[in-house]
Amino acid sequence: MRVLGIDPGYALMGWGVVDSQGGRMQLVGYGCLETRAGTPMQHRLRALYTGIHDLVQIYQPDDVAFEELFFAHNVTTALMVGAARGAAIIAAGEYTEQLYEYTPMQIKQAVTGSGRADKRQVQQMVKLLMGLSELPKPDDAADAIACAITHAQAGVGKEQFRMK
Amino acid sequence: MRVLGIDPGYALMGWGVVDSQGGRMQLVGYGCLETRAGTPMQHRLRALYTGIHDLVQIYQPDDVAFEELFFAHNVTTALMVGAARGAAIIAAGEYTEQLYEYTPMQIKQAVTGSGRADKRQVQQMVKLLMGLSELPKPDDAADAIACAITHAQAGVGKEQFRMK
Repeated sequence: MRVLGIDPGYALMGWGVVDSQGGRMQLVGYGCLETRAGTPMQHRLRALYTGIHDLVQIYQPDDVAFEELFFAHNVTTALMVGAARGAAIIAAGEYTEQLYEYTPMQIKQAVTGSGRADKRQVQQMVKLLMGLSELPKPDDAADAIACAITHAQAGVGKEQFRMK
Repeated sequence: MRVLGIDPGYALMGWGVVDSQGGRMQLVGYGCLETRAGTPMQHRLRALYTGIHDLVQIYQPDDVAFEELFFAHNVTTALMVGAARGAAIIAAGEYTEQLYEYTPMQIKQAVTGSGRADKRQVQQMVKLLMGLSELPKPDDAADAIACAITHAQAGVGKEQFRMK
């Protein structure tokens, strides 16, 4: 199974592609879509939409796994990041019905064995599990890879994480 | 000039099309895009995206005017409505660079002469200005028409309201 993991963001949207077969996993590709502050919103959202559109065409994932967004307070940020996430969902949803979503805690638990692991521990485990020589950068890409790993591990239980 | 006004929402997205020429205005069409609770998010966002895409193709507006979103507290709602607004911006932005945005207070001021007018007063003025025999329904459509009227009235000063 091939999973595209996405860490949704407005300025930076991380992505990572993981293949898994019989418990073995392999990192196929990863990176970040970047949109520049000062550019009109319609262009930034369009770039994210087009970017995810291109990624699903290039990598042809079986499933797409999103990291869920959590915010404590900032409603203005939520509006913008919600829009960025929406752009990615529309683009991925054009390609497949197989959209899933995991909370940051579920991802930490799946990758490190602890829901309270910090960012550095998650990155270290991503490096280890994927057999990388360095920590994957930027953080958003590492988060997206971790999300893809989480989904690949979920296996037959994955249906409960289907995006509503 | 033809203006498509949009009142962004997730379950209901109001729209209204207003033609203006030499201070005279005419309502060309209005309505609501509706998405049903319980339907997967990717389908709801896709329906809003496709709906706005179709509306700009059908009505070929010169400008598109959005009502700005304001929320006091609810971040979860902001994420969803932000995504809905994002879907509309992507679809409208594919069609034109002429995207504008007005706050609820600017719209009330433009339509009724008072930034503190209530919903009913705005609807009454929309009915009067557009020569309708009844109040336009639902409220979301009336708000979208009011937004289009606001933009049509802005005229040469409209550039300050361009969406960033």
